[in-house]
Amino acid sequence: METDRPLDALNNARNKRVILELKNQKQFIGKLKAFDIHINAVLDDAEEYVDGQLRKKMGTVFVRGDTIIYIAVAD
Amino acid sequence: METDRPLDALNNARNKRVILELKNQKQFIGKLKAFDIHINAVLDDAEEYVDGQLRKKMGTVFVRGDTIIYIAVAD
Amino acid sequence: METDRPLDALNNARNKRVILELKNQKQFIGKLKAFDIHINAVLDDAEEYVDGQLRKKMGTVFVRGDTIIYIAVAD
Amino acid sequence: METDRPLDALNNARNKRVILELKNQKQFIGKLKAFDIHINAVLDDAEEYVDGQLRKKMGTVFVRGDTIIYIAVAD
Amino acid sequence: METDRPLDALNNARNKRVILELKNQKQFIGKLKAFDIHINAVLDDAEEYVDGQLRKKMGTVFVRGDTIIYIAVAD
Amino acid sequence: METDRPLDALNNARNKRVILELKNQKQFIGKLKAFDIHINAVLDDAEEYVDGQLRKKMGTVFVRGDTIIYIAVAD
Amino acid sequence: METDRPLDALNNARNKRVILELKNQKQFIGKLKAFDIHINAVLDDAEEYVDGQLRKKMGTVFVRGDTIIYIAVAD
Repeated sequence: METDRPLDALNNARNKRVILELKNQKQFIGKLKAFDIHINAVLDDAEEYVDGQLRKKMGTVFVRGDTIIYIAVAD
Repeated sequence: METDRPLDALNNARNKRVILELKNQKQFIGKLKAFDIHINAVLDDAEEYVDGQLRKKMGTVFVRGDTIIYIAVAD
Repeated sequence: METDRPLDALNNARNKRVILELKNQKQFIGKLKAFDIHINAVLDDAEEYVDGQLRKKMGTVFVRGDTIIYIAVAD
Repeated sequence: METDRPLDALNNARNKRVILELKNQKQFIGKLKAFDIHINAVLDDAEEYVDGQLRKKMGTVFVRGDTIIYIAVAD
Repeated sequence: METDRPLDALNNARNKRVILELKNQKQFIGKLKAFDIHINAVLDDAEEYVDGQLRKKMGTVFVRGDTIIYIAVAD
Repeated sequence: METDRPLDALNNARNKRVILELKNQKQFIGKLKAFDIHINAVLDDAEEYVDGQLRKKMGTVFVRGDTIIYIAVAD
Repeated sequence: METDRPLDALNNARNKRVILELKNQKQFIGKLKAFDIHINAVLDDAEEYVDGQLRKKMGTVFVRGDTIIYIAVAD
Protein backbone atom coordinates (compact mmCIF):
# COMPACT_ATOMS: atom_id res chain seq x y z
CA MET A 1 0.00 0.00 0.00
CA GLU A 2 1.33 3.38 -1.05
CA THR A 3 1.31 5.84 1.86
CA ASP A 4 3.92 8.45 1.03
CA ARG A 5 1.51 11.20 0.06
CA PRO A 6 -1.62 12.25 1.96
CA LEU A 7 -3.92 11.40 -0.93
CA ASP A 8 -2.59 7.81 -0.83
CA ALA A 9 -4.27 7.49 2.55
CA LEU A 10 -7.56 8.60 1.05
CA ASN A 11 -7.07 6.20 -1.81
CA ASN A 12 -6.62 3.34 0.66
CA ALA A 13 -9.93 4.38 2.27
CA ARG A 14 -11.87 4.24 -1.00
CA ASN A 15 -14.99 2.05 -0.75
CA LYS A 16 -14.63 1.87 3.01
CA ARG A 17 -16.90 3.57 5.53
CA VAL A 18 -15.31 6.81 6.67
CA ILE A 19 -16.03 9.57 9.17
CA LEU A 20 -15.80 12.99 7.66
CA GLU A 21 -15.78 15.88 10.13
CA LEU A 22 -16.83 19.31 8.91
CA LYS A 23 -15.92 22.81 10.07
CA ASN A 24 -19.54 23.47 11.09
CA GLN A 25 -19.44 20.78 13.80
CA LYS A 26 -21.29 18.20 11.75
CA GLN A 27 -20.07 14.78 10.72
CA PHE A 28 -20.86 12.54 7.80
CA ILE A 29 -20.41 8.77 7.91
CA GLY A 30 -20.59 6.89 4.63
CA LYS A 31 -18.72 4.87 2.04
CA LEU A 32 -15.99 6.95 0.36
CA LYS A 33 -16.56 6.74 -3.39
CA ALA A 34 -14.47 9.57 -4.80
CA PHE A 35 -12.24 12.51 -3.86
CA ASP A 36 -9.98 14.97 -5.65
CA ILE A 37 -7.02 17.23 -4.86
CA HIS A 38 -9.33 19.87 -3.32
CA ILE A 39 -10.54 17.07 -0.99
CA ASN A 40 -14.00 17.37 -2.50
CA ALA A 41 -15.45 13.99 -1.51
CA VAL A 42 -18.40 11.80 -2.42
CA LEU A 43 -19.97 9.41 0.09
CA ASP A 44 -22.54 6.70 -0.54
CA ASP A 45 -25.14 5.64 2.06
CA ALA A 46 -24.26 8.79 3.93
CA GLU A 47 -25.56 9.67 7.39
CA GLU A 48 -25.38 13.17 8.83
CA TYR A 49 -24.57 13.51 12.55
CA VAL A 50 -24.80 16.59 14.77
CA ASP A 51 -23.24 16.33 18.23
CA GLY A 52 -23.02 12.57 17.83
CA GLN A 53 -26.76 12.21 17.05
CA LEU A 54 -27.91 10.83 13.72
CA ARG A 55 -29.89 13.57 12.03
CA LYS A 56 -30.51 12.44 8.49
CA LYS A 57 -29.94 9.44 6.26
CA MET A 58 -29.00 10.42 2.74
CA GLY A 59 -28.07 8.55 -0.39
CA THR A 60 -25.06 9.92 -2.22
CA VAL A 61 -23.64 13.20 -1.01
CA PHE A 62 -21.04 15.49 -2.55
CA VAL A 63 -19.12 17.39 0.14
CA ARG A 64 -17.09 20.48 -0.81
CA GLY A 65 -13.48 20.00 0.23
CA ASP A 66 -12.93 23.32 1.97
CA THR A 67 -15.53 22.44 4.63
CA ILE A 68 -13.69 19.29 5.72
CA ILE A 69 -11.46 19.03 8.80
CA TYR A 70 -10.54 15.37 8.66
CA ILE A 71 -11.39 12.03 7.07
CA ALA A 72 -10.81 8.75 8.91
CA VAL A 73 -11.83 5.15 8.34
CA ALA A 74 -14.80 4.35 10.62
CA ASP A 75 -14.37 1.49 13.08
CA MET B 1 -22.37 5.65 -14.54
CA GLU B 2 -18.99 7.24 -14.03
CA THR B 3 -18.29 7.80 -10.33
CA ASP B 4 -14.52 7.94 -10.00
CA ARG B 5 -14.25 11.68 -9.53
CA PRO B 6 -16.39 13.86 -7.26
CA LEU B 7 -17.75 15.92 -10.15
CA ASP B 8 -19.07 12.69 -11.72
CA ALA B 9 -21.47 12.48 -8.79
CA LEU B 10 -22.71 15.98 -9.52
CA ASN B 11 -23.04 15.11 -13.17
CA ASN B 12 -25.23 12.12 -12.26
CA ALA B 13 -27.42 14.53 -10.26
CA ARG B 14 -27.97 16.90 -13.17
CA ASN B 15 -31.67 17.59 -13.83
CA LYS B 16 -32.62 15.92 -10.56
CA ARG B 17 -33.91 17.70 -7.46
CA VAL B 18 -31.06 18.27 -5.04
CA ILE B 19 -30.56 19.66 -1.55
CA LEU B 20 -27.80 22.18 -1.37
CA GLU B 21 -26.69 23.14 2.15
CA LEU B 22 -24.94 26.47 2.63
CA LYS B 23 -22.41 27.66 5.22
CA ASN B 24 -24.91 30.24 6.53
CA GLN B 25 -27.31 27.52 7.74
CA LYS B 26 -29.69 27.87 4.82
CA GLN B 27 -30.65 25.22 2.31
CA PHE B 28 -31.79 25.36 -1.27
CA ILE B 29 -33.85 22.62 -2.89
CA GLY B 30 -34.22 22.68 -6.66
CA LYS B 31 -33.39 21.00 -9.94
CA LEU B 32 -29.63 20.99 -10.59
CA LYS B 33 -29.07 22.56 -14.02
CA ALA B 34 -25.38 23.40 -14.06
CA PHE B 35 -22.20 23.39 -11.98
CA ASP B 36 -18.49 24.00 -12.53
CA ILE B 37 -15.16 23.12 -10.91
CA HIS B 38 -15.62 25.86 -8.28
CA ILE B 39 -18.93 24.12 -7.42
CA ASN B 40 -20.80 27.24 -8.52
CA ALA B 41 -24.25 25.75 -9.11
CA VAL B 42 -27.50 26.71 -10.81
CA LEU B 43 -30.86 25.41 -9.58
CA ASP B 44 -34.25 25.70 -11.30
CA ASP B 45 -37.53 25.91 -9.37
CA ALA B 46 -35.46 26.66 -6.30
CA GLU B 47 -36.85 26.93 -2.78
CA GLU B 48 -34.94 28.52 0.07
CA TYR B 49 -35.22 26.90 3.53
CA VAL B 50 -34.10 28.25 6.88
CA ASP B 51 -34.14 25.81 9.81
CA GLY B 52 -36.23 23.43 7.77
CA GLN B 53 -38.91 26.06 7.03
CA LEU B 54 -39.66 27.11 3.46
CA ARG B 55 -38.87 30.80 3.25
CA LYS B 56 -38.99 31.73 -0.40
CA LYS B 57 -39.82 30.21 -3.77
CA MET B 58 -37.51 31.39 -6.48
CA GLY B 59 -37.11 30.63 -10.14
CA THR B 60 -33.55 30.06 -11.26
CA VAL B 61 -30.81 30.74 -8.75
CA PHE B 62 -27.04 30.92 -9.17
CA VAL B 63 -25.24 29.86 -5.97
CA ARG B 64 -21.56 30.75 -5.50
CA GLY B 65 -19.57 27.58 -4.91
CA ASP B 66 -17.58 28.70 -1.89
CA THR B 67 -20.78 29.03 0.18
CA ILE B 68 -21.76 25.39 -0.33
CA ILE B 69 -21.21 22.62 2.23
CA TYR B 70 -22.81 19.70 0.42
CA ILE B 71 -25.06 18.73 -2.48
CA ALA B 72 -27.25 15.61 -2.33
CA VAL B 73 -30.08 14.23 -4.42
CA ALA B 74 -33.39 15.00 -2.65
CA ASP B 75 -35.61 12.05 -1.77
CA MET C 1 -30.71 29.78 -24.24
CA GLU C 2 -27.43 28.26 -23.21
CA THR C 3 -27.64 26.84 -19.68
CA ASP C 4 -24.93 24.21 -19.45
CA ARG C 5 -22.52 26.22 -17.35
CA PRO C 6 -23.35 28.31 -14.27
CA LEU C 7 -22.19 31.55 -15.87
CA ASP C 8 -24.71 30.95 -18.68
CA ALA C 9 -27.43 31.47 -16.09
CA LEU C 10 -25.90 34.79 -15.12
CA ASN C 11 -25.64 35.74 -18.76
CA ASN C 12 -29.35 35.05 -19.22
CA ALA C 13 -30.01 37.39 -16.29
CA ARG C 14 -28.05 40.28 -17.79
CA ASN C 15 -30.10 43.50 -17.95
CA LYS C 16 -32.78 41.97 -15.75
CA ARG C 17 -33.50 42.93 -12.15
CA VAL C 18 -31.78 40.48 -9.82
CA ILE C 19 -31.58 39.81 -6.11
CA LEU C 20 -28.05 39.44 -4.89
CA GLU C 21 -27.67 38.06 -1.35
CA LEU C 22 -24.46 38.80 0.52
CA LYS C 23 -22.64 36.91 3.27
CA ASN C 24 -23.20 39.81 5.69
CA GLN C 25 -26.99 39.33 5.63
CA LYS C 26 -27.63 42.21 3.25
CA GLN C 27 -29.27 42.07 -0.14
CA PHE C 28 -28.96 44.18 -3.25
CA ILE C 29 -31.70 44.43 -5.86
CA GLY C 30 -30.82 46.02 -9.18
CA LYS C 31 -30.33 45.52 -12.89
CA LEU C 32 -27.43 43.13 -13.60
CA LYS C 33 -25.06 44.93 -15.96
CA ALA C 34 -21.85 42.93 -15.74
CA PHE C 35 -20.17 40.00 -13.99
CA ASP C 36 -16.94 38.00 -14.34
CA ILE C 37 -15.57 34.59 -13.40
CA HIS C 38 -14.94 35.72 -9.80
CA ILE C 39 -18.67 36.63 -9.70
CA ASN C 40 -17.74 40.26 -9.23
CA ALA C 41 -21.00 41.91 -10.31
CA VAL C 42 -22.24 45.37 -11.29
CA LEU C 43 -25.82 46.44 -10.67
CA ASP C 44 -27.60 49.57 -11.96
CA ASP C 45 -30.40 51.30 -10.03
CA ALA C 46 -29.33 49.29 -7.04
CA GLU C 47 -31.18 49.20 -3.73
CA GLU C 48 -29.64 47.89 -0.52
CA TYR C 49 -31.85 45.87 1.84
CA VAL C 50 -31.20 44.79 5.41
CA ASP C 51 -33.62 42.27 6.92
CA GLY C 52 -36.03 42.90 4.08
CA GLN C 53 -36.09 46.69 4.70
CA LEU C 54 -34.92 49.10 2.02
CA ARG C 55 -31.99 50.97 3.46
CA LYS C 56 -30.41 52.91 0.63
CA LYS C 57 -30.98 53.66 -3.03
CA MET C 58 -27.77 53.75 -4.98
CA GLY C 59 -26.91 54.27 -8.61
CA THR C 60 -24.35 51.83 -9.98
CA VAL C 61 -22.67 49.49 -7.52
CA PHE C 62 -19.73 47.15 -7.94
CA VAL C 63 -20.02 44.12 -5.63
CA ARG C 64 -16.96 41.97 -4.93
CA GLY C 65 -17.68 38.38 -5.88
CA ASP C 66 -16.44 36.68 -2.75
CA THR C 67 -19.14 38.39 -0.66
CA ILE C 68 -21.98 36.93 -2.72
CA ILE C 69 -24.07 33.92 -1.71
CA TYR C 70 -26.54 33.81 -4.58
CA ILE C 71 -27.93 35.74 -7.53
CA ALA C 72 -31.50 35.22 -8.73
CA VAL C 73 -33.80 37.03 -11.13
CA ALA C 74 -36.23 39.19 -9.10
CA ASP C 75 -39.94 38.54 -9.57
CA MET D 1 -18.70 54.21 -21.77
CA GLU D 2 -17.60 50.60 -21.65
CA THR D 3 -19.68 48.61 -19.12
CA ASP D 4 -19.45 44.99 -20.20
CA ARG D 5 -17.05 43.88 -17.50
CA PRO D 6 -17.23 44.70 -13.79
CA LEU D 7 -13.89 46.52 -13.80
CA ASP D 8 -15.27 48.85 -16.49
CA ALA D 9 -17.67 50.17 -13.86
CA LEU D 10 -14.75 50.88 -11.54
CA ASN D 11 -12.91 52.54 -14.37
CA ASN D 12 -15.88 54.84 -14.97
CA ALA D 13 -15.73 55.77 -11.27
CA ARG D 14 -12.08 56.76 -11.37
CA ASN D 15 -11.46 60.27 -10.00
CA LYS D 16 -15.01 60.40 -8.64
CA ARG D 17 -15.96 60.26 -4.97
CA VAL D 18 -16.95 56.72 -4.06
CA ILE D 19 -18.31 54.87 -1.05
CA LEU D 20 -16.35 51.77 -0.24
CA GLU D 21 -17.97 49.41 2.27
CA LEU D 22 -15.75 47.00 4.17
CA LYS D 23 -16.44 43.60 5.70
CA ASN D 24 -15.71 45.00 9.19
CA GLN D 25 -18.73 47.34 9.04
CA LYS D 26 -16.67 50.43 8.24
CA GLN D 27 -16.97 52.64 5.20
CA PHE D 28 -14.51 54.84 3.39
CA ILE D 29 -15.57 57.79 1.26
CA GLY D 30 -12.96 59.35 -1.01
CA LYS D 31 -11.84 59.96 -4.57
CA LEU D 32 -11.04 56.68 -6.37
CA LYS D 33 -7.52 57.00 -7.74
CA ALA D 34 -6.53 53.43 -8.56
CA PHE D 35 -7.67 49.82 -8.38
CA ASP D 36 -6.49 46.45 -9.69
CA ILE D 37 -7.93 43.00 -10.44
CA HIS D 38 -7.81 42.05 -6.75
CA ILE D 39 -9.96 45.16 -6.12
CA ASN D 40 -7.14 46.65 -4.08
CA ALA D 41 -8.13 50.33 -4.19
CA VAL D 42 -6.58 53.71 -3.47
CA LEU D 43 -8.67 56.67 -2.31
CA ASP D 44 -7.61 60.31 -2.01
CA ASP D 45 -9.08 62.70 0.60
CA ALA D 46 -10.45 59.64 2.32
CA GLU D 47 -12.82 59.73 5.30
CA GLU D 48 -13.45 56.73 7.52
CA TYR D 49 -17.01 56.17 8.78
CA VAL D 50 -18.26 53.78 11.46
CA ASP D 51 -22.03 53.34 11.74
CA GLY D 52 -22.54 56.38 9.56
CA GLN D 53 -20.40 58.63 11.83
CA LEU D 54 -17.26 60.27 10.49
CA ARG D 55 -14.38 58.92 12.53
CA LYS D 56 -11.21 60.03 10.84
CA LYS D 57 -10.07 62.18 7.93
CA MET D 58 -7.12 60.70 6.12
CA GLY D 59 -5.11 61.66 3.08
CA THR D 60 -4.41 58.83 0.68
CA VAL D 61 -5.39 55.34 1.77
CA PHE D 62 -4.62 51.95 0.23
CA VAL D 63 -7.41 49.43 0.95
CA ARG D 64 -6.75 45.71 0.49
CA GLY D 65 -9.26 44.27 -1.96
CA ASP D 66 -10.34 41.24 0.04
CA THR D 67 -11.82 43.47 2.76
CA ILE D 68 -14.19 45.23 0.35
CA ILE D 69 -17.89 44.41 -0.03
CA TYR D 70 -18.91 47.04 -2.56
CA ILE D 71 -17.83 50.24 -4.28
CA ALA D 72 -20.37 52.81 -5.46
CA VAL D 73 -20.20 56.38 -6.71
CA ALA D 74 -21.18 58.72 -3.85
CA ASP D 75 -24.14 61.03 -4.45
CA MET E 1 19.55 17.03 8.49
CA GLU E 2 18.23 19.55 6.00
CA THR E 3 16.41 22.41 7.75
CA ASP E 4 16.52 25.33 5.34
CA ARG E 5 12.90 25.12 4.22
CA PRO E 6 9.86 24.67 6.45
CA LEU E 7 8.90 21.37 4.83
CA ASP E 8 12.31 19.98 5.77
CA ALA E 9 11.22 20.24 9.39
CA LEU E 10 8.12 18.21 8.61
CA ASN E 11 10.24 15.71 6.76
CA ASN E 12 12.46 15.30 9.83
CA ALA E 13 9.30 14.60 11.86
CA ARG E 14 8.10 11.81 9.56
CA ASN E 15 7.36 8.57 11.43
CA LYS E 16 7.63 10.38 14.76
CA ARG E 17 4.74 11.18 17.09
CA VAL E 18 3.59 14.73 16.52
CA ILE E 19 1.08 17.15 17.99
CA LEU E 20 -1.08 18.79 15.39
CA GLU E 21 -3.14 21.75 16.60
CA LEU E 22 -6.24 22.71 14.63
CA LYS E 23 -8.04 26.03 14.19
CA ASN E 24 -11.14 24.62 15.93
CA GLN E 25 -9.30 24.20 19.25
CA LYS E 26 -8.77 20.47 18.85
CA GLN E 27 -5.49 18.61 18.75
CA PHE E 28 -4.42 15.38 17.16
CA ILE E 29 -1.49 13.33 18.41
CA GLY E 30 -0.20 10.54 16.20
CA LYS E 31 2.62 9.27 14.04
CA LEU E 32 3.22 11.56 11.03
CA LYS E 33 3.08 9.38 7.92
CA ALA E 34 2.67 11.85 5.08
CA PHE E 35 2.21 15.54 4.25
CA ASP E 36 2.20 17.72 1.13
CA ILE E 37 2.73 21.36 0.20
CA HIS E 38 -0.81 22.27 1.33
CA ILE E 39 0.18 20.79 4.73
CA ASN E 40 -2.48 18.11 4.30
CA ALA E 41 -1.23 15.52 6.76
CA VAL E 42 -1.79 11.85 7.57
CA LEU E 43 -1.35 10.49 11.09
CA ASP E 44 -1.30 6.86 12.21
CA ASP E 45 -2.52 5.74 15.66
CA ALA E 46 -4.14 9.12 15.98
CA GLU E 47 -5.80 10.42 19.15
CA GLU E 48 -8.14 13.40 19.18
CA TYR E 49 -7.93 15.80 22.13
CA VAL E 50 -10.30 18.60 23.11
CA ASP E 51 -9.11 20.98 25.84
CA GLY E 52 -6.34 18.54 26.71
CA GLN E 53 -8.75 15.63 27.24
CA LEU E 54 -8.51 12.52 25.08
CA ARG E 55 -11.78 12.24 23.21
CA LYS E 56 -11.32 9.56 20.60
CA LYS E 57 -8.76 7.00 19.49
CA MET E 58 -8.66 6.62 15.74
CA GLY E 59 -6.57 4.63 13.32
CA THR E 60 -5.30 6.56 10.34
CA VAL E 61 -6.60 10.08 9.86
CA PHE E 62 -6.25 12.47 6.94
CA VAL E 63 -6.27 16.11 8.13
CA ARG E 64 -6.91 18.91 5.62
CA GLY E 65 -4.01 21.35 5.67
CA ASP E 66 -5.97 24.57 5.93
CA THR E 67 -7.33 23.58 9.36
CA ILE E 68 -3.86 23.22 10.88
CA ILE E 69 -2.17 25.85 13.06
CA TYR E 70 1.03 24.06 13.94
CA ILE E 71 2.79 20.69 13.92
CA ALA E 72 5.41 19.80 16.53
CA VAL E 73 7.20 16.63 17.56
CA ALA E 74 5.54 15.28 20.72
CA ASP E 75 7.76 14.84 23.77
CA MET F 1 4.58 60.48 -8.95
CA GLU F 2 3.07 57.39 -10.49
CA THR F 3 -0.41 56.70 -9.08
CA ASP F 4 -2.22 54.63 -11.68
CA ARG F 5 -1.95 51.33 -9.85
CA PRO F 6 -2.65 50.69 -6.17
CA LEU F 7 0.89 49.54 -5.47
CA ASP F 8 2.16 52.90 -6.76
CA ALA F 9 0.48 54.48 -3.75
CA LEU F 10 2.36 52.11 -1.45
CA ASN F 11 5.56 52.88 -3.29
CA ASN F 12 5.03 56.60 -2.69
CA ALA F 13 4.64 55.82 1.02
CA ARG F 14 7.94 53.95 1.26
CA ASN F 15 10.18 55.26 4.04
CA LYS F 16 7.31 57.34 5.44
CA ARG F 17 5.47 56.64 8.69
CA VAL F 18 2.27 54.76 7.93
CA ILE F 19 -0.75 53.49 9.82
CA LEU F 20 -1.52 49.88 9.08
CA GLU F 21 -4.91 48.64 10.30
CA LEU F 22 -5.38 44.92 10.84
CA LYS F 23 -8.45 42.69 10.70
CA ASN F 24 -8.07 41.89 14.42
CA GLN F 25 -8.72 45.52 15.44
CA LYS F 26 -5.07 46.32 16.05
CA GLN F 27 -3.00 48.98 14.35
CA PHE F 28 0.68 49.30 13.64
CA ILE F 29 2.39 52.64 13.11
CA GLY F 30 5.90 52.61 11.70
CA LYS F 31 8.13 53.45 8.76
CA LEU F 32 7.18 51.45 5.65
CA LYS F 33 10.32 49.68 4.44
CA ALA F 34 9.02 47.02 2.07
CA PHE F 35 5.88 45.46 0.64
CA ASP F 36 4.99 42.95 -2.08
CA ILE F 37 2.00 42.03 -4.25
CA HIS F 38 0.42 40.05 -1.39
CA ILE F 39 0.64 43.31 0.63
CA ASN F 40 3.02 41.60 3.03
CA ALA F 41 4.64 44.64 4.63
CA VAL F 42 7.68 45.47 6.75
CA LEU F 43 7.71 48.39 9.18
CA ASP F 44 10.67 49.85 11.06
CA ASP F 45 10.35 51.49 14.50
CA ALA F 46 6.93 49.89 14.71
CA GLU F 47 4.41 50.57 17.48
CA GLU F 48 1.42 48.34 18.14
CA TYR F 49 -1.87 50.01 19.14
CA VAL F 50 -5.04 48.43 20.48
CA ASP F 51 -8.11 50.66 20.65
CA GLY F 52 -5.93 53.70 20.11
CA GLN F 53 -3.65 52.85 23.08
CA LEU F 54 0.04 52.17 22.52
CA ARG F 55 0.66 48.63 23.63
CA LYS F 56 4.15 47.73 22.51
CA LYS F 57 7.18 49.31 20.86
CA MET F 58 8.89 46.96 18.47
CA GLY F 59 11.84 47.21 16.12
CA THR F 60 11.26 45.78 12.69
CA VAL F 61 8.03 43.86 12.11
CA PHE F 62 6.91 41.71 9.19
CA VAL F 63 3.12 41.80 8.78
CA ARG F 64 1.38 39.15 6.67
CA GLY F 65 -0.62 40.82 3.92
CA ASP F 66 -3.89 38.96 4.38
CA THR F 67 -4.35 40.45 7.86
CA ILE F 68 -4.25 44.03 6.59
CA ILE F 69 -7.33 46.20 6.00
CA TYR F 70 -5.67 49.45 4.95
CA ILE F 71 -2.37 51.33 4.83
CA ALA F 72 -2.26 55.14 5.01
CA VAL F 73 0.47 57.70 5.51
CA ALA F 74 0.40 58.87 9.16
CA ASP F 75 -0.13 62.59 9.76
CA MET G 1 21.59 43.95 4.52
CA GLU G 2 19.00 43.59 1.81
CA THR G 3 15.64 45.04 2.89
CA ASP G 4 13.79 45.88 -0.31
CA ARG G 5 11.37 42.98 -0.18
CA PRO G 6 9.40 41.77 2.84
CA LEU G 7 11.03 38.34 2.82
CA ASP G 8 14.44 40.05 3.15
CA ALA G 9 13.34 41.17 6.60
CA LEU G 10 12.53 37.57 7.52
CA ASN G 11 15.87 36.48 6.11
CA ASN G 12 17.65 39.00 8.35
CA ALA G 13 15.79 37.49 11.31
CA ARG G 14 16.93 33.94 10.57
CA ASN G 15 18.57 32.27 13.58
CA LYS G 16 17.38 35.06 15.85
CA ARG G 17 14.68 34.79 18.49
CA VAL G 18 11.41 36.07 17.08
CA ILE G 19 7.88 36.69 18.29
CA LEU G 20 5.27 35.20 16.03
CA GLU G 21 1.70 36.33 16.68
CA LEU G 22 -1.14 34.10 15.50
CA LYS G 23 -4.72 34.88 14.47
CA ASN G 24 -6.03 32.81 17.41
CA GLN G 25 -4.51 35.21 19.98
CA LYS G 26 -1.55 32.98 20.76
CA GLN G 27 2.09 33.82 20.38
CA PHE G 28 5.17 31.74 19.76
CA ILE G 29 8.65 32.84 20.74
CA GLY G 30 11.59 30.88 19.34
CA LYS G 31 14.57 30.89 17.03
CA LEU G 32 13.53 31.36 13.38
CA LYS G 33 15.03 28.49 11.41
CA ALA G 34 13.12 28.51 8.14
CA PHE G 35 10.28 30.19 6.25
CA ASP G 36 8.86 30.17 2.72
CA ILE G 37 6.75 32.40 0.48
CA HIS G 38 3.53 31.26 2.19
CA ILE G 39 5.16 32.46 5.46
CA ASN G 40 5.10 28.90 6.76
CA ALA G 41 7.72 29.16 9.48
CA VAL G 42 9.81 26.84 11.64
CA LEU G 43 10.96 27.84 15.13
CA ASP G 44 13.48 26.07 17.38
CA ASP G 45 13.27 26.14 21.19
CA ALA G 46 9.74 27.43 20.78
CA GLU G 47 7.54 28.61 23.64
CA GLU G 48 3.80 29.05 23.31
CA TYR G 49 2.18 32.04 25.06
CA VAL G 50 -1.49 32.76 25.65
CA ASP G 51 -2.36 36.26 26.93
CA GLY G 52 1.29 36.85 27.74
CA GLN G 53 1.54 33.71 29.92
CA LEU G 54 3.94 30.91 28.99
CA ARG G 55 1.84 27.85 28.38
CA LYS G 56 4.11 25.26 26.85
CA LYS G 57 7.76 24.74 25.99
CA MET G 58 8.20 22.89 22.75
CA GLY G 59 11.16 21.83 20.67
CA THR G 60 10.86 22.52 16.96
CA VAL G 61 7.50 23.73 15.69
CA PHE G 62 6.20 24.14 12.16
CA VAL G 63 3.63 26.97 11.97
CA ARG G 64 1.31 27.22 8.95
CA GLY G 65 1.72 30.61 7.31
CA ASP G 66 -1.94 31.54 6.99
CA THR G 67 -2.35 31.60 10.79
CA ILE G 68 0.35 34.23 11.27
CA ILE G 69 -0.33 37.95 11.82
CA TYR G 70 3.21 39.22 12.30
CA ILE G 71 6.81 38.17 12.94
CA ALA G 72 9.23 40.43 14.80
CA VAL G 73 12.67 40.00 16.32
CA ALA G 74 12.28 39.53 20.08
CA ASP G 75 14.09 42.03 22.33
